[in-house]
Amino acid sequence: MSPIERDSLPESWSRVAIVSVSPQVDGGRWPVRRSVGERVDVVAGIIIDGHDKIAAEVRVGHEDDAEPSTVPLKLRYNDEYVGHFDVTTLGSYHYQVSAWVDLIGTWHDQFRRRVDGGENQRELRAELLEGATHLRAAANEADGEDREHLLDLASRMELGHIDAGLSEDVIRLGRKWSPRHGLVEGPRIEVVVDPELARFAAWYEFFPRSTSDVAGRHGTFDDAAERLPRIKELGFDIVYLPPIHPIGTTFRKGKDNAPTAGPDDPGSPWAMGAEDGGHKAVHAELGGIDAFDRFVAKADELGIKVALDIAFQTSPDHPYVKQHPEWFKHRPDGTIRYAENPPKKYQDVYPFDFESDDWQALWLELKSVFEFWMDHGVRVFRVDNPHTKSIPFWQWCIGELRREHPDLIFLSEAFTRPKMMHTLAKLGFNNSYTYFTWRNTKEELTEYAHELFHTEVADFFRPNFWPNTPDILHDYLVYGGRAAHIIRLVLAATMSPTYGIYGPPYEHVDNRQHPDREEYAHNEKYEIRHWNWNDSSSLQPLMRRINRIRRDHVALQYARNIAFHEVDNDAIIAYSKHTGDDIILVVVNLDPHHEQSGWVSFDPQAHDLAAGRSIQVHDLIGDERYLWNGDRHFVKLNPSVMPAHIFHIRHEVSTERDFPYFQ
Amino acid sequence: MSPIERDSLPESWSRVAIVSVSPQVDGGRWPVRRSVGERVDVVAGIIIDGHDKIAAEVRVGHEDDAEPSTVPLKLRYNDEYVGHFDVTTLGSYHYQVSAWVDLIGTWHDQFRRRVDGGENQRELRAELLEGATHLRAAANEADGEDREHLLDLASRMELGHIDAGLSEDVIRLGRKWSPRHGLVEGPRIEVVVDPELARFAAWYEFFPRSTSDVAGRHGTFDDAAERLPRIKELGFDIVYLPPIHPIGTTFRKGKDNAPTAGPDDPGSPWAMGAEDGGHKAVHAELGGIDAFDRFVAKADELGIKVALDIAFQTSPDHPYVKQHPEWFKHRPDGTIRYAENPPKKYQDVYPFDFESDDWQALWLELKSVFEFWMDHGVRVFRVDNPHTKSIPFWQWCIGELRREHPDLIFLSEAFTRPKMMHTLAKLGFNNSYTYFTWRNTKEELTEYAHELFHTEVADFFRPNFWPNTPDILHDYLVYGGRAAHIIRLVLAATMSPTYGIYGPPYEHVDNRQHPDREEYAHNEKYEIRHWNWNDSSSLQPLMRRINRIRRDHVALQYARNIAFHEVDNDAIIAYSKHTGDDIILVVVNLDPHHEQSGWVSFDPQAHDLAAGRSIQVHDLIGDERYLWNGDRHFVKLNPSVMPAHIFHIRHEVSTERDFPYFQ
Repeated sequence: MSPIERDSLPESWSRVAIVSVSPQVDGGRWPVRRSVGERVDVVAGIIIDGHDKIAAEVRVGHEDDAEPSTVPLKLRYNDEYVGHFDVTTLGSYHYQVSAWVDLIGTWHDQFRRRVDGGENQRELRAELLEGATHLRAAANEADGEDREHLLDLASRMELGHIDAGLSEDVIRLGRKWSPRHGLVEGPRIEVVVDPELARFAAWYEFFPRSTSDVAGRHGTFDDAAERLPRIKELGFDIVYLPPIHPIGTTFRKGKDNAPTAGPDDPGSPWAMGAEDGGHKAVHAELGGIDAFDRFVAKADELGIKVALDIAFQTSPDHPYVKQHPEWFKHRPDGTIRYAENPPKKYQDVYPFDFESDDWQALWLELKSVFEFWMDHGVRVFRVDNPHTKSIPFWQWCIGELRREHPDLIFLSEAFTRPKMMHTLAKLGFNNSYTYFTWRNTKEELTEYAHELFHTEVADFFRPNFWPNTPDILHDYLVYGGRAAHIIRLVLAATMSPTYGIYGPPYEHVDNRQHPDREEYAHNEKYEIRHWNWNDSSSLQPLMRRINRIRRDHVALQYARNIAFHEVDNDAIIAYSKHTGDDIILVVVNLDPHHEQSGWVSFDPQAHDLAAGRSIQVHDLIGDERYLWNGDRHFVKLNPSVMPAHIFHIRHEVSTERDFPYFQ
Repeated sequence: MSPIERDSLPESWSRVAIVSVSPQVDGGRWPVRRSVGERVDVVAGIIIDGHDKIAAEVRVGHEDDAEPSTVPLKLRYNDEYVGHFDVTTLGSYHYQVSAWVDLIGTWHDQFRRRVDGGENQRELRAELLEGATHLRAAANEADGEDREHLLDLASRMELGHIDAGLSEDVIRLGRKWSPRHGLVEGPRIEVVVDPELARFAAWYEFFPRSTSDVAGRHGTFDDAAERLPRIKELGFDIVYLPPIHPIGTTFRKGKDNAPTAGPDDPGSPWAMGAEDGGHKAVHAELGGIDAFDRFVAKADELGIKVALDIAFQTSPDHPYVKQHPEWFKHRPDGTIRYAENPPKKYQDVYPFDFESDDWQALWLELKSVFEFWMDHGVRVFRVDNPHTKSIPFWQWCIGELRREHPDLIFLSEAFTRPKMMHTLAKLGFNNSYTYFTWRNTKEELTEYAHELFHTEVADFFRPNFWPNTPDILHDYLVYGGRAAHIIRLVLAATMSPTYGIYGPPYEHVDNRQHPDREEYAHNEKYEIRHWNWNDSSSLQPLMRRINRIRRDHVALQYARNIAFHEVDNDAIIAYSKHTGDDIILVVVNLDPHHEQSGWVSFDPQAHDLAAGRSIQVHDLIGDERYLWNGDRHFVKLNPSVMPAHIFHIRHEVSTERDFPYFQ
């Protein structure tokens, strides 16, 4: 053969090939997203010619670890090797699969089959000699007792001792020390780990200016702080406030978005910035920055996090407009371009020009807005319309902020097309609004949950389920009234571990809709409302109970563990969540107007419960208990009483009260 | 801001992001596979902040092209941009998507909406000035008439001429010449283009030694050449021959794989190599290499390709064993390892050691086996059990051979797990055996066809459907007899454009099964059979007709165009294939024992046929014509008469004979 021919040959190669590794996002272009306390299930497709065995492991390390740890992978079926590791620390992990030919395992397996098949002594002795060469190679790498033991085994095999060859130590020590023949490595994959609160949290949105005891009076942060113990007691983890900055007066909108404001109209908090300040100031009537600091201190004391709304746009009165006109787009006539979607005009809003000639200064200033509020104790941000700002800005800004502060939470308010929503999640938004609001039928809910929780979307996109927002009051809530509010609350809070409500109108079932739009009438965005914060006839007691159930049941604190169950009635949806020993089965009548009944399929064996034994089904909402046998179960739900069951399922038939929900 | 802060900013960035591109195999790790005459449908996910428009195109070039060509991409929906190109030349293409901000398109669209919305003259004039700056930027890049025209438009717009701004030339010329603001490029993706015969071919397998006119006499290649006109006349494109090399005598197997051979047993052709030669020799009783050359010449003359079986293993008598004992595995006692899967032993087969110390020489020698037969006119190879040989060997070997000879076809005989089958396809096998043989119910067939033809598998794996092989005689054929043979033939030949049969026993419905195994009794692998090559009572007339239908109907020459149609009877399967104007609807009764009837859903509108007009349904098997109205149609199929329809569907009610099937 000629040297040229040889040149075409690979320099080195392996019989083993790693053909797929998951989880992985876009072939490694983006990190996998998890939270503290979650498990990463690794599945690697690994192949080899013929019937030889493969050994495989995954190496895992946190960015702060000196040494990675290793987890062995086990063959499941069809060339899939599986293993898992837990992520326990904020920040960045990397994992990498490696695989090699398991020479000793292959030899041992074949030797056992030769012995079992009755192969003759002469042939077995020949095979023992080959096994011994593998063990001597392992002994070369070993030390201490292992080395002695390997050499001893090899000697006995060379002497023809079949029992030595069959010994499990051949496998155990041989695998431990054998050189890794044909070692190959998969890609190094990053896993970004968020705080637990990014995965499991109940959000409560309210307008601080509507918290005064006195109807019509502008509330302050000190008034708002008075509401926090109640919100805490209802079981919420995060209070989310619409923008708190000075509100512009130029082109200020009136009630219900009227084109002109009356003299007493307070304006929309999203028209940010006035003479007395912009994104780093607090609206004077809310009490200024000191009142805000007191509010955050009170929240801290109660263990509640404060989420701010970051909306990168300005009113025409924002100080930036005068100080940095170069950060805005201009027309040829020199005027600043307001927001518009011709023929619609939004003269009260100036968008930033992220491609401004002075973009570097603009980007750094906008990042410093986050830093300013972080200095005031804020760790959670709800970002307004991030999809109308340049994508690379977010990637840079969130990347920089999270480098030092991996505990930050960014909720993306991008009600837009899937590819943009997904990209924002991939680049760093670790909470996202969803289409949940518009998914109301069983088919829609099931299909959407499958997409979010059971496909690769779950590796980068963390949904936050909201039944309502100040901008969105769905017809379902309007026509379905109180029952619909209960239904959507139960769905949001039990399908997704992270959910939120725009609280005051929701708990009071104030579902008066704007005549032209699917949003609230008397919209709090444009006027101060007065709410009864301690109304026991409201949905508050139910919220308290549901949040308590979520807190007591670990199964409700994870997303990917959801499974749907057949019901022979399309008006009833049933799904379970199962983590460890905790099994929750949620059954909801989606029809807010009529009683519905049906048979729910729930197979105890599929949930690690013994077949042929009764299961106790404890409705945690109504505190009622049932015994179920078999795998199909009758349910009947009257929406005017309670349209949902949240069942805790177990074997033990217990009568003790699990917890005193209503004290 | 400090210089350090600025350092963290990106140097350059774009508002546009290409977030996905298809087709693509494993994120570009392997090329996309197509064949001459196929179309590549490109789908790119491209996003931008806000509502601005995106312009996108794909650049395509064959390796021999001096300049790539470009195809514009058009927005379909949800940020998906689509376009397509045809591949017409063997070898390697590359395509690459690029995208940028369509400034002029965005401006023009908004300007039109401003005009339609009745915006005032002052504002429109300001916008015209902005439009004019875009056009002047375009004019800077343009030349000739285009430049003049752009400058003229810009001037008129500067003068306030609204009609100039609305002109379609603003779009046409502006888009053509505008600088590409925010240009981004996707990955460069390879498309490997195979010969048409890799996509559309009917294979016919037979044993040359069974072609003698005289029962019991060993056939030669001259006898085999006598069979070629008949095979050609039946419509087959490729004749595939089991190994043709000298057959070893040591441990030769007897009839039906008996452990010892009788004195007249010819041995299995897969026990390759004897004293008179190995992989580059022709078995003496077949007439030697000269007879083979005459056979290939005859096939060439008829337009038939000859496919050889390449099995990289040897009998103990192969010359390699003496000349290159280092190419085989040895036991510690120095003997060569025969093939085994303990406790089973295959003493007549020596596998190669692809990791031999002298692997380079072995690999080069094995590659030269292909080259030897290529020199003798062979372009199609069926590779025996490639999954038991090292994967990198195939990647190198096929890669090297195809570099000079992109017309080669390699059929992978890897009846194994999906990941290995897929990897072999990705690395170069451009035809693959499948699980078709074991997919017999409507559900199995539908699901499997979906996986093969409608998922990303279709981008790298080209299935070849075989109802039988010398190793596989499925129970369905045994119990279903003649009707089952017709059913499976119609399915193979119409679901997949590439199919094959192990011909002689199939056409004679010789379905006697081995008592212990799902394979033929009197297996031709171990004995010479005598067939009637011109039996009009056999399935030959039906094969001739089906191959003729395939040739006449372009819809049957492609794979991805298959669509399944509902039938209210699980024993009947219906699917259509639609390419250009050609529409074929296949309806098969899968029950070989009973007449079955049902209603087939076929919506003419979904196939570009006018609603409310009759369609003519012409059964190309039975040459019967029906008129169908509406979208549900009654069918009844008696398997003892004919279990399948192959309908040609069109509007025109014609009575002319399409072609003289039976002359």
